[in-house]
Amino acid sequence: MEQSAVPSNRINRAMQNFKVTLAYDGTAYCGWQIQPDRPTVQSELQRAIFRLTNEHVSVNCAGRTDAGVHALGQVANFRSESRLSNERWLLGLQHFLPTDIAVLKIERVADDFHATISAKRKTYRYVILSSRLRDVFSRHYAWRISHPLDEHQMKEAAGHLIGTHDFRCFETQGSPRVDTIRTLFEVQVRRCQPWQLLSPEAEPVSDNQGAFLVVEVTGDGFLYNMVRAIAGTLVEVGLGKRSADSLATLIQSGRRADAGQTAPPQGLFLVRVGYGGGEMPAP
Amino acid sequence: MEQSAVPSNRINRAMQNFKVTLAYDGTAYCGWQIQPDRPTVQSELQRAIFRLTNEHVSVNCAGRTDAGVHALGQVANFRSESRLSNERWLLGLQHFLPTDIAVLKIERVADDFHATISAKRKTYRYVILSSRLRDVFSRHYAWRISHPLDEHQMKEAAGHLIGTHDFRCFETQGSPRVDTIRTLFEVQVRRCQPWQLLSPEAEPVSDNQGAFLVVEVTGDGFLYNMVRAIAGTLVEVGLGKRSADSLATLIQSGRRADAGQTAPPQGLFLVRVGYGGGEMPAP
Repeated sequence: MEQSAVPSNRINRAMQNFKVTLAYDGTAYCGWQIQPDRPTVQSELQRAIFRLTNEHVSVNCAGRTDAGVHALGQVANFRSESRLSNERWLLGLQHFLPTDIAVLKIERVADDFHATISAKRKTYRYVILSSRLRDVFSRHYAWRISHPLDEHQMKEAAGHLIGTHDFRCFETQGSPRVDTIRTLFEVQVRRCQPWQLLSPEAEPVSDNQGAFLVVEVTGDGFLYNMVRAIAGTLVEVGLGKRSADSLATLIQSGRRADAGQTAPPQGLFLVRVGYGGGEMPAP
Repeated sequence: MEQSAVPSNRINRAMQNFKVTLAYDGTAYCGWQIQPDRPTVQSELQRAIFRLTNEHVSVNCAGRTDAGVHALGQVANFRSESRLSNERWLLGLQHFLPTDIAVLKIERVADDFHATISAKRKTYRYVILSSRLRDVFSRHYAWRISHPLDEHQMKEAAGHLIGTHDFRCFETQGSPRVDTIRTLFEVQVRRCQPWQLLSPEAEPVSDNQGAFLVVEVTGDGFLYNMVRAIAGTLVEVGLGKRSADSLATLIQSGRRADAGQTAPPQGLFLVRVGYGGGEMPAP
């Protein structure tokens, strides 16, 4: 950036803090975070900003998604001197970004807004396809389980996760967090219709035929791979390999080895990030 | 196949005619039809059958889709001596096929069934996304139009296409067909919900917010690129570049140059194929 010669009050006046909301298909990326010589969402976004403004910026995000993980409403922020209108920002970034990354919204925000630190709540969705036969159109967006899943048991198990707990049993080992206590405000298990566009029949499929199961989790923060470990554990409940009540014991034990497998990345979506007080359900 | 030494009555007894229903994501393929050294759906299917049965078969299909075009219910047939159960056929082909091709159904059918010749009706769907901003998850499955589309005008225009007409105005030039008369039984223009799984909000989007428009056409046969030329022409009506009534004149003129552009391949789906009398709406 080489701005050391510029008086600091001049920088503050010229620089604005931008909040962007992004959707992306994570299939082709080695995750969000920039890595040398590997395609990442952060590097694509920073490159697009450079091509639009000629500025080298560094972008923070709310949740650093892993390789193959998607976003419907990732939030990021960066500082720029550009005076482009929001409209030109939107269409300009769309022009320079690859087709699997979309900017949904861009706003100028207060200087102290930080996409990571200011985040109060995040919602992740994990998509499971319960089907013996493959579905080609969801292959990058769901984890296919060949055996039937007991949705009611999964719902009951999910209830044990709500609240403030030490969630270390769902954290991938070797992670650097000291504090493993998090609060989950909401954990839903529900069926979801397949996309009508991709169904042979024009009519929506009736509720009990829907083979997609969604686990949606809202919390104040998440440990590394926590949602994927929760999804893997709930699938074991759905398959009858463990009881719904065993989740209470599991959380108490705190042992990662007692939980289910880390579900594969392609079923995971960062859905939205909450910053204020009002837009998300209170704990 | 080298079966010339086998008496023909023996071949007839041993060979069975199989009907398969397939879905595929056409993004990675140079269309259905086999081509030397290029990935095609036909070559993948024939390779999977060979790996399962050790037989080199030749597969016919109902509609030879082009590069980038998808299928929700393509139908094909082939002859095999294999005595595998339908269940083992299904799971065996699933094992050997790439993840973007799915066998939905396999049946033993009468010897005179031919996927191409026996087809009575085919339904194609063309998907349009009317949105200024890109949608990453439908980028391979829809044609994005940045300007608003007048759905009512498109519906009115579609009405002119129903019935028996000489459709040469929608045929890509240089095509070898002599007879360009076809019957369209149904032409629908309708809105379609985005996939809930890929929407930031859990609730279904209300009808008038849906930005996906579907053109669905059922007919006794189609000229080369006919559905894509119809979609391109209806989009011009939706944009206000031509009137709904102009479609009657266009069909009478028979000039390809008077119709709209051939819409891009990724919005097109072969939805289903009808063989009997009862399963599709009568003309």
